[in-house]
Amino acid sequence: MKNIKIIGFDADDTLWVNEPFYQETEKKYQQLLSEYGSEEAIGKELFSTEMNNIELYGFGAKSFLLSMIETALKVSKQQISQCTIDKIINLGKELINSPMEVFENVEKVLSRLSKNYVLIVATKGDLLDQERKLRVSGLGKYFHHIEIMSDKQSENYAKLLAHLDVTPEEFLMIGNSVKSDILPVLELGGNVIHVPFHTTWAHEVVDKNDSIFNFPVVDNISQIIGMIFDETQN
Amino acid sequence: MKNIKIIGFDADDTLWVNEPFYQETEKKYQQLLSEYGSEEAIGKELFSTEMNNIELYGFGAKSFLLSMIETALKVSKQQISQCTIDKIINLGKELINSPMEVFENVEKVLSRLSKNYVLIVATKGDLLDQERKLRVSGLGKYFHHIEIMSDKQSENYAKLLAHLDVTPEEFLMIGNSVKSDILPVLELGGNVIHVPFHTTWAHEVVDKNDSIFNFPVVDNISQIIGMIFDETQN
Repeated sequence: MKNIKIIGFDADDTLWVNEPFYQETEKKYQQLLSEYGSEEAIGKELFSTEMNNIELYGFGAKSFLLSMIETALKVSKQQISQCTIDKIINLGKELINSPMEVFENVEKVLSRLSKNYVLIVATKGDLLDQERKLRVSGLGKYFHHIEIMSDKQSENYAKLLAHLDVTPEEFLMIGNSVKSDILPVLELGGNVIHVPFHTTWAHEVVDKNDSIFNFPVVDNISQIIGMIFDETQN
Repeated sequence: MKNIKIIGFDADDTLWVNEPFYQETEKKYQQLLSEYGSEEAIGKELFSTEMNNIELYGFGAKSFLLSMIETALKVSKQQISQCTIDKIINLGKELINSPMEVFENVEKVLSRLSKNYVLIVATKGDLLDQERKLRVSGLGKYFHHIEIMSDKQSENYAKLLAHLDVTPEEFLMIGNSVKSDILPVLELGGNVIHVPFHTTWAHEVVDKNDSIFNFPVVDNISQIIGMIFDETQN
């Protein structure tokens, strides 16, 4: 990690809580639709709608809300009440307005790293949502800018690095998703640190057999500092 | 325009047709809801919902679709049929999948300018949508990258210029919207060329009294070439 110039941070579930709010929303949604199927069955249908829509809608809360409405019509065979659809829209709006819970030690880490590196947020969330979260979190001052990615596959990172004008060796990605933040960057020859979070969206879960790489993992984001500065001092 | 290094192009209704597809979608939507009000009344309610949601949802087709669903529930006092809601979702999906119609002379202009300048797309559309349009249009090769902006006010452009590491004098913005592409860039001291399009979204319409600036306007995008190269040769 000697030559690092730019450090990319994933945002949701790396800097602040996100997935638990989605899961809470989904739980309420499943309860609203309980007469049309078990929580598990509704959840499965919703996930299937989301995956069908992902090419068209992409990631983020608005896509999730649209898929919730579509799934409600589908599982109810269009019997879902208009009032329930209205409640689903409100669930989506509440999700977008979720409270901000920055993880412990994040600010300390950003403050330290921003003295030596250019920090960016690299996320496939919605720009408006991520700008709002960055503002509310008070973390905006540590970042040079936000990079919105339509997906986080290795070709998306290749584009990002070209745009940032750095080589993979000069880039370090830090995030909670092995699938989105770690493997595609490793594939390009870039640097990574994995900061696991206890809750992972089904779409982000990696088959263990796919994960043939070794990469640094920290229990707590605060350990990053020692890891980067020890390495760079060698 | 002597010192220009980077040229930003707005995308929708500057490079390719967009607003007419929205208006066509809205027309079909008004017809679906005709039992609940005149086209004008439905259109007014929809616009009001869009404006109420803009802080939460931002711009783009998904936001428009969510506002169409919400408005349908509202104007029908939740009497709208589930089948009609399903049709509205399909209208939104069709809108996202609208055909690509690049304006005449756009490719010629981009090809010429890309030899001397770094070109970027600067848009407040959805990244996924804009990447798809750029790919389908075949224009992607002329652009260094896409900049997604959550809004196009002067503070958003100020951030953009800082991120691109250019001064306002080194930046030229080309677009069809006086409100979003021209006035905020002028305000920062940047360069602009206005390429009007016959159809403008109500949100983008500028009160003539607000427009106290003089700025270059071209009838056809092909005139940009003469304008830029004549000026830079001086």
